[in-house]
Amino acid sequence: MRSSDELRESVEEHLGALSLSSDLGGLEPVVRYALDGGGKRLRPVLCLATAEAAGGDPDLALDAAAALELVHSFSLVHDDLPALDDDDQRRGRPSVHVRFGEAQAILGGDALLNEAFALALRYPTPVVGRELAVATSGMIGGQYLDVNGGPRDRLELNRLKTGRLFEASVGCGLWVAGVEAGDQPPWRAFGADFGFLFQLVDDLLDDDGIARERGREEALLLAHETEERARSGLGAIDADTTVLGELLDQLVARRP
Amino acid sequence: MRSSDELRESVEEHLGALSLSSDLGGLEPVVRYALDGGGKRLRPVLCLATAEAAGGDPDLALDAAAALELVHSFSLVHDDLPALDDDDQRRGRPSVHVRFGEAQAILGGDALLNEAFALALRYPTPVVGRELAVATSGMIGGQYLDVNGGPRDRLELNRLKTGRLFEASVGCGLWVAGVEAGDQPPWRAFGADFGFLFQLVDDLLDDDGIARERGREEALLLAHETEERARSGLGAIDADTTVLGELLDQLVARRP
Repeated sequence: MRSSDELRESVEEHLGALSLSSDLGGLEPVVRYALDGGGKRLRPVLCLATAEAAGGDPDLALDAAAALELVHSFSLVHDDLPALDDDDQRRGRPSVHVRFGEAQAILGGDALLNEAFALALRYPTPVVGRELAVATSGMIGGQYLDVNGGPRDRLELNRLKTGRLFEASVGCGLWVAGVEAGDQPPWRAFGADFGFLFQLVDDLLDDDGIARERGREEALLLAHETEERARSGLGAIDADTTVLGELLDQLVARRP
Repeated sequence: MRSSDELRESVEEHLGALSLSSDLGGLEPVVRYALDGGGKRLRPVLCLATAEAAGGDPDLALDAAAALELVHSFSLVHDDLPALDDDDQRRGRPSVHVRFGEAQAILGGDALLNEAFALALRYPTPVVGRELAVATSGMIGGQYLDVNGGPRDRLELNRLKTGRLFEASVGCGLWVAGVEAGDQPPWRAFGADFGFLFQLVDDLLDDDGIARERGREEALLLAHETEERARSGLGAIDADTTVLGELLDQLVARRP
């Protein structure tokens, strides 16, 4: 069984060698720039680790894993646009629209989403693609709630904007490993908890979101409960979930 | 065999009754507005007519047909944005960003593309989705060429921006009808000619694109040649292609 570091290396290699549609032409550097931002590749690593824990070959999950990272990148590129969150920086570098201009950022984001589906559609069944489409509509709906102000449920917003893609990361790993839909719920519950915890830790680190709206104490309590539930959920799955536990450890270690 | 008007009615009904992901929430009216623009539904009708001509049930092609229209709408919504073509009007109505604001237009376009894939992924095989992804990368690459000025090949640009989705409309109809890849080339050639002719007629009507760059005379000559090629291509297909011929007649009738 590969360690999370080894899985992360596989993801980086696969993303680096990714062949994009030649039709994109001069837009390819925009797509590569967005993908090379030095992210932690949490979603694709979670996908590969799930596939392996569920008895599959993680290498067969590489296209699905890359597709998840492309959807994540698509959402960052569009969310950073001036009309949305208007963020000039992303992971210490100029965001895509600052570096390449707005037109390129809009088209580059579109290309990232479309290439994600092209990758997901390399599989002989449509299930990986369906998983992406469900997650992406959640993310778009969540971003809509986020930019439209008004009363909003922060937990629902996080569930859509962040949780869905984490659950899909687990879901894609399960499909590639051949796990039937009926056997997926405990794994998926772990994915949802993992995503929710990720967002809580992020909010605590940035003193933002739930940490700001409900106070640090409540956010820490929620994080603790979610971690416990994720761990006991993992323990109840009849499989070697060591690496998934490792990923949870790494997530918790970031918590202030 | 249904007439092109009957097929168009089926498309309108299917689009009107389309269930979108509930996650989109307040973004749904944006998506519906973009879809209700009174377009001619040429791509979905071409898809249904191809499916029926190739011996399939056009009703089984309705999801694919709707997906094609959603991809078309996605491209219009994003292309109209201020950072791209900056068009305030679309078919006599305010364009989406004028009516709903830029944030909604960006997210609404994203939602249209994603819902298109969700529709294409309702099929038990990934072929319809693959067809969409190939067409969409062509459209995005074509729009990139269009907004980035500099020397550009107008024929190549049209082939990407317009031609690809018309070819995919024929392709999706063929897949739904169960036509093997090896038997598809003559049908696809018709789709490519149809798309090219559509763009030429549009350019002639607007005195734009090829009509402006190469002059009306050359554009008319190209349109005539393309029409002839499309007709003789159709004639060589061993199937009842009456309705496809009808669609070609309607296209040519628009030519000034």
